[in-house]
Amino acid sequence: MKKTINIAVVGLGQIGVYLYNEINNKKKEIEKKTGKKIKIVAISAKNKDKKRKYKIDKKIFYINPLNIFKEKKVDILIEAIGLSDGISKKIIEQALKNKIHVITPNKALISKHGDKLGRLAEKNKVNLEFEASVAGGIPIIRTIKEGLATNKITKVYGILNGTCNYIMTEMEKTKDTFKNVLKKAQNLGYAEPSNPKLDLNGYDALSKIKILSSLAFNKKISGSKCLMEGIENIDYSDIKIANQLNYRIKLLGITEIINNKIFERVHPCLVRKDSYIGNVNGVMNAVILNGFPIGESVLQGEGAGPGPTSSALMSDLLSILRGNIKYPFGISQYKRGKPKIFNKNLSSNSLYFRLEVKDKPGVLSSITKLFANYKISIERLIQIPNDKKKTASIVIITHNANEANSLNCLSILKKKKDIIKKPVLIRLFN
Amino acid sequence: MKKTINIAVVGLGQIGVYLYNEINNKKKEIEKKTGKKIKIVAISAKNKDKKRKYKIDKKIFYINPLNIFKEKKVDILIEAIGLSDGISKKIIEQALKNKIHVITPNKALISKHGDKLGRLAEKNKVNLEFEASVAGGIPIIRTIKEGLATNKITKVYGILNGTCNYIMTEMEKTKDTFKNVLKKAQNLGYAEPSNPKLDLNGYDALSKIKILSSLAFNKKISGSKCLMEGIENIDYSDIKIANQLNYRIKLLGITEIINNKIFERVHPCLVRKDSYIGNVNGVMNAVILNGFPIGESVLQGEGAGPGPTSSALMSDLLSILRGNIKYPFGISQYKRGKPKIFNKNLSSNSLYFRLEVKDKPGVLSSITKLFANYKISIERLIQIPNDKKKTASIVIITHNANEANSLNCLSILKKKKDIIKKPVLIRLFN
Repeated sequence: MKKTINIAVVGLGQIGVYLYNEINNKKKEIEKKTGKKIKIVAISAKNKDKKRKYKIDKKIFYINPLNIFKEKKVDILIEAIGLSDGISKKIIEQALKNKIHVITPNKALISKHGDKLGRLAEKNKVNLEFEASVAGGIPIIRTIKEGLATNKITKVYGILNGTCNYIMTEMEKTKDTFKNVLKKAQNLGYAEPSNPKLDLNGYDALSKIKILSSLAFNKKISGSKCLMEGIENIDYSDIKIANQLNYRIKLLGITEIINNKIFERVHPCLVRKDSYIGNVNGVMNAVILNGFPIGESVLQGEGAGPGPTSSALMSDLLSILRGNIKYPFGISQYKRGKPKIFNKNLSSNSLYFRLEVKDKPGVLSSITKLFANYKISIERLIQIPNDKKKTASIVIITHNANEANSLNCLSILKKKKDIIKKPVLIRLFN
Repeated sequence: MKKTINIAVVGLGQIGVYLYNEINNKKKEIEKKTGKKIKIVAISAKNKDKKRKYKIDKKIFYINPLNIFKEKKVDILIEAIGLSDGISKKIIEQALKNKIHVITPNKALISKHGDKLGRLAEKNKVNLEFEASVAGGIPIIRTIKEGLATNKITKVYGILNGTCNYIMTEMEKTKDTFKNVLKKAQNLGYAEPSNPKLDLNGYDALSKIKILSSLAFNKKISGSKCLMEGIENIDYSDIKIANQLNYRIKLLGITEIINNKIFERVHPCLVRKDSYIGNVNGVMNAVILNGFPIGESVLQGEGAGPGPTSSALMSDLLSILRGNIKYPFGISQYKRGKPKIFNKNLSSNSLYFRLEVKDKPGVLSSITKLFANYKISIERLIQIPNDKKKTASIVIITHNANEANSLNCLSILKKKKDIIKKPVLIRLFN
């Protein structure tokens, strides 16, 4: 007789309940693919009687997930609660200590506690799988850990937040404001209705970059603050001007090796309209890897939503059922060194500035003088007068400029009384 | 003390010798990632003293690879000889029977004998790995078997032959003839110098489609003839006209489920210039999957050459060293049913025709009448006169037309005495 593998699913939000239903529907297929019978023996959520998209078995329902392991024999825990701390962290620790495999889509948790939890999994000889934590529809974690296992990866970048990419795409298409498009995204379920901040300010994408970074470069997860900027301040006028200059604005996450150090960052970028990444639109995600000997590798797919996320969680489940006990980060926790972090002040980028100024003599010359003082060399300058208001927009594209100088220059610009709105700085993607 | 894993590499052409060098260079990294020490204990090729890119250890050299297993204890065989039959098939069979894991990039062999060899591997509880057989730089086989394991895949298509894609791209760019561009591709090492036929006639791409098809749909490899056309007859004038109509010509491999049957095909396609696939140029490969719940997933990377191929072979090696004994095709050989094959005569496509005709009254009307007879409805007709020669080119884009009717119509067109060159038919990508 075949052994039955017992599964617990904790967290029955959009993802959890979809997965619960998928597992029940695909029992036979999973048995066919892995030779293992599976059974969901426990589920848990805050509210037992909430209306859900799929029916749940209330006989196996727990209000407090921490009680599950006391009463049930569980082989695999699927955590779909979310948040980096609190109950989600507690139950995962409890599971690993009890030699229970863990599957989670929780990027906040993995990017913060992944090293510690990975060590716990390794010590207890169980799996900690988190394919769904980055770009659900793209099996990027498996690809780095297995498909490209012996490549020397030098750079990983891409569009990692579907919410932001949807908003940027939609603003361009509809010429509407950030605020209105965000509201639309919330109505469509692409953005969190209550608190979309973690998507919009770049935090979500940065969590994913930290995870990819540690996998690609075989280092511990960096605890450094990195360079993080969101899309909250992007105005339609920037999208319009970028468009005229043959660019689109995308929120990119980038991690790369510079002088043997790791440089991680998330910020809006002007990318060329005819580039690959410039044409990844809507809620799509894309990841591009540069490595040796592989060359450039591109992966694109739906980033979020219960379907793609559940596809990733199921691939983790099958991996465990097939009996592949693996290091959570591809190599032993004891061999993952601390990352050396590149000083972001030493980085350089071409820049886009937009300054709204009073249209009077001397303003332009004082701005260009300031740029010269900060050793920022101007490649292109466009002045767009606004006769009615006696103001003008000055758009400047610079050559490669040092990051620290650029930010210092920006802070002086902010104080200039002839500049009547908060100046805009967006980096170009090199 | 750790056990040492013994490896034999047979075939030391461009791929084999590159891999031999990679394995020797990456021993330490492999030990770090898998905890296993590895050693190449035997190599084999036709010619011991041939000049090679990397130095080989002649003390472990065998002229006849079939002698290796008699003298050496081998755990993993890497076959890089090529061809679907003969010595490559013999040694793989011998290895599997001796419970030796096998890694091969040989798509001709896998697409022909994969089912039988897979059964042999399963029976002997060893791995048969062939990630490198399809699109080296893209871990597509692992992605289907593991990353997308529980998705219901409905269609897989893409650019699977770098040689053909290079030629098509280069013809468009340089406006040169097929013959000249082929010569250039051969000089650059992108096409076989002696016999490039299997790349150009679509056979190579079809082997890959057969492998992808069996993995995506969990069926045995189809032995059917399918629809296979190559790029040998593409003329620059077709590329030019396609271009004016906003299309590019690409050799696509496509497999999909239609009415629960599998439809596999390889042929040149007119694809829209602004589509993703229309912008995969040069020697690049790309694979696009449609599945549920994943949606559309895109993977792009370098398709051929020793670097990407070796990256794929190394991922197979690591998978074996990590101790993942797996079904070669994702599920047990005994559960892979025979595929039901869609009758290609029932398929339909929009079509592009180019006819070189004598420029005289009545020709056009007789052609359009013929199309009407075969129930092919014309969407667009362009007549380009060539006054000097008193001839004209007639370009026709049709609505969706039945395949059998289209081919019958074409065979009549071929016989028409007013059509002075072999008529051209290229399918549009729907």
